[in-house]
Amino acid sequence: MQECIFCKIAENKIPSVNIYDSGKSLAFMDIMPARKGHVLVIPRKHGEILSDISEEDLKDVILTVRKVTDAMFKSLCCDGINVHQCNRAAAGQVVNHVHFHLIPRSEGDNLNFGWPHEAYDKGEMENIAGKIRSSL
Amino acid sequence: MQECIFCKIAENKIPSVNIYDSGKSLAFMDIMPARKGHVLVIPRKHGEILSDISEEDLKDVILTVRKVTDAMFKSLCCDGINVHQCNRAAAGQVVNHVHFHLIPRSEGDNLNFGWPHEAYDKGEMENIAGKIRSSL
Repeated sequence: MQECIFCKIAENKIPSVNIYDSGKSLAFMDIMPARKGHVLVIPRKHGEILSDISEEDLKDVILTVRKVTDAMFKSLCCDGINVHQCNRAAAGQVVNHVHFHLIPRSEGDNLNFGWPHEAYDKGEMENIAGKIRSSL
Repeated sequence: MQECIFCKIAENKIPSVNIYDSGKSLAFMDIMPARKGHVLVIPRKHGEILSDISEEDLKDVILTVRKVTDAMFKSLCCDGINVHQCNRAAAGQVVNHVHFHLIPRSEGDNLNFGWPHEAYDKGEMENIAGKIRSSL
């Protein structure tokens, strides 16, 4: 994946400020943070979206996510942390290598990850749920 | 956890439209969706934030998250999926039981999970990274 910037970071070909390296996953500072202290966690092995990485790598990544959020709660003056992950450009994915954003939050900061709510018609939720279940 | 609505859902004491049950984790429809098809994934065992659940439960939850996102991509006409998780009220957490939002996205939908970028002063990112590393 010569053109993947996160593969290059994992291979130490692009400098990064690293937080933790499990061997299978890597946590490093986002240089364009939503909030100062924003960390990214990636699997070392390339995959575009969650579906593309191995079960072992996925489990390792989430353990790294949790380990780093624990450390962020201990070390940063933050009141909360968002874990955010985007699959495909329509979801806001910019780098096509699986990554989890760990974003420290403070009461009254200027971030807004809230959303308006859509309303289901009668029976519509059950119908959509059936479609998802049938594709499991 | 008598007062936890997600514990009650896991115990079948409150009705829910379920998608998948691994035994350790449960996926069900969010009744107030950001977008139609919005699914929640929880560990069956109560924990408020990521730090509070066992390693086994955390690994099981993320495998369920991935399994359901795969099914959502197959079954829904969505161009992307956001996985979003909030730790503490300052991060937007409303129900104090670990949950991952799986939100189907379409090109041009009205959701915005983007963020403005903060700028680090010289040396500041490295300083913050050092604090996080020292708390691992």
